[in-house]
Amino acid sequence: MEHYSFALDCNGGDYAPLEIVRGGILASKEFGYKLFLVGDGKKIEAILRKSGELGNPLLEVVDAPENVGFQESPSSVLKKKNSSLYVGAKLVREGKAQGLISAGNTGAVLAVGKFIVGAEEEVERPAIAVALPNPKGKTVLIDVGANVDSKPRHLVQFAVIGHTYAQEILGIKNPRVGLLSIGEEEGKGNELVKETYPLLKQTGLNFLGNAEGRDIYAGTFDVIVCDGFVGNIILKASESLGLAVVQMIKEEIKKSLLAKFGAFLLLPALNSFRKKADFTEYGGIPLLGAKKPVIITHGKANAKAIKNAIKVAGEFLSHDFNVKLVENIRELIPEEVRV
Amino acid sequence: MEHYSFALDCNGGDYAPLEIVRGGILASKEFGYKLFLVGDGKKIEAILRKSGELGNPLLEVVDAPENVGFQESPSSVLKKKNSSLYVGAKLVREGKAQGLISAGNTGAVLAVGKFIVGAEEEVERPAIAVALPNPKGKTVLIDVGANVDSKPRHLVQFAVIGHTYAQEILGIKNPRVGLLSIGEEEGKGNELVKETYPLLKQTGLNFLGNAEGRDIYAGTFDVIVCDGFVGNIILKASESLGLAVVQMIKEEIKKSLLAKFGAFLLLPALNSFRKKADFTEYGGIPLLGAKKPVIITHGKANAKAIKNAIKVAGEFLSHDFNVKLVENIRELIPEEVRV
Repeated sequence: MEHYSFALDCNGGDYAPLEIVRGGILASKEFGYKLFLVGDGKKIEAILRKSGELGNPLLEVVDAPENVGFQESPSSVLKKKNSSLYVGAKLVREGKAQGLISAGNTGAVLAVGKFIVGAEEEVERPAIAVALPNPKGKTVLIDVGANVDSKPRHLVQFAVIGHTYAQEILGIKNPRVGLLSIGEEEGKGNELVKETYPLLKQTGLNFLGNAEGRDIYAGTFDVIVCDGFVGNIILKASESLGLAVVQMIKEEIKKSLLAKFGAFLLLPALNSFRKKADFTEYGGIPLLGAKKPVIITHGKANAKAIKNAIKVAGEFLSHDFNVKLVENIRELIPEEVRV
Repeated sequence: MEHYSFALDCNGGDYAPLEIVRGGILASKEFGYKLFLVGDGKKIEAILRKSGELGNPLLEVVDAPENVGFQESPSSVLKKKNSSLYVGAKLVREGKAQGLISAGNTGAVLAVGKFIVGAEEEVERPAIAVALPNPKGKTVLIDVGANVDSKPRHLVQFAVIGHTYAQEILGIKNPRVGLLSIGEEEGKGNELVKETYPLLKQTGLNFLGNAEGRDIYAGTFDVIVCDGFVGNIILKASESLGLAVVQMIKEEIKKSLLAKFGAFLLLPALNSFRKKADFTEYGGIPLLGAKKPVIITHGKANAKAIKNAIKVAGEFLSHDFNVKLVENIRELIPEEVRV
């Protein structure tokens, strides 16, 4: 077991600091990692004391009581130098911590990821990937919001980043890569897609061509590449659709006693499904291409989700993700496409 | 009851011609509309004969046996002048029919809608709208695939088209209009959104600002405007997510006898939900801003879905949709934004 150390933002998230700190305690026990618990020092210490963990050398409290709220502008974090996110990112930048985990303001996590932790060599723009569930496994959608108005060469990099994530972290061999568009054939789509397609063909990726919206949850591709504007909207629309479906089914069930009983019998199956579908179970969304792992978890992350996010951060290190990523960018993208 | 006449493409769709012709028969009986049944004349006549409707003057067979398959390029329809779609669209162009309904190749229906039926006065680009379900009602998403690489002034027109659809056809008063982006505040999003936002503020629309992906199924807006590239991907991803969820829940249910029994008891509630969520129940997706109603139904449309699509085409006419649309474009969009 490696002795990694991570900065854990204990201010961000709906259930901060309690569930965040608890997640840190779980991760430290289970994986032996050192955690810098960055946030309101007094509150964190109180939680550690109650848990009998105060003084545990693997759980170091770093006082940074300021927070970047969900309503605040992401860039405000770069001015809030006493915020837990800024302080956490600085610990990474200075080499004290080897990664950052936060359930806070997504945009703000991205901002410190891009500007404080910084981009890995060869990576022009770090991107966020999410592993979406499908009946056969998982599909990586990249980028889901770190970049808008991407250029074709950025999408090519996202493809290689997604390929590396699928292969090294999700264990998918020779991932099938698709370019998100609105028609299967080359030449279908908007200008960005039309310009990106021939570039992707020149790479060493297992590029199968355009993917359509219906491929996202169908398991027909392992990696689907898109600009962050589109990816972010898909991700949030999917979440919202899930919630709406549950809500509407509940309304229908309320109308019938028999249906209520049926729903009760179905509960274990539905919970098991929810676990599969809930990406927080899998450790959140990584900002890929940053110098060190930066993991964004859902705002509603509980202790278990935080523990899983820390686990994933460890996997990025133990699998030498960044080393492979830089190799892949150099090997899979021809020189003329790279710049 | 008005005596409208419509061209019905009897070649397009998974269940063509049987379910299409049956849908036409239902619509003619229920609404008194005349239908040009355009397609393989012999097959259509055989179905009419079996149904005892051969010779019914409201059901006129127009022989156009060629078809544009789902795999064919949409633009190929413009060369296939004997295809049911082309012949149907020409009936509309010549004023014999007052609208076109098809379950065929969506791109090909769009092509004949834009180039044969043509755009209404003041409309620069017709757009497709879909009324998506949410727990409180419906949200119109526009454009979902008729246009890519739209300019800001196109999105402004889409907003007015969506507003008119929501108000005149769905009966939503003073519809709340949102601009799809990846952040709530003005200034969030890509270049297109940043340029469109100030233009929308200048219109007479009830413009509430940016909508996010999560608003699409949340009922927080009545009309959400986007480029067709994004809208199409959202629509198809949503459908695919729905299918994947059903598939994954079924897998879970298979694992337990109790869950199977529960699912059985839930069936009526689930079917009632499915009806609400299935937009084919509501008569398909209209190409708005064409000179006459052009309705695209799902490829899997059955007789009932076809009947509903024909009903919606009639509503566009009886509600004077196009007259109101032209008025709205002139009244709600300031001169300087229009060109």
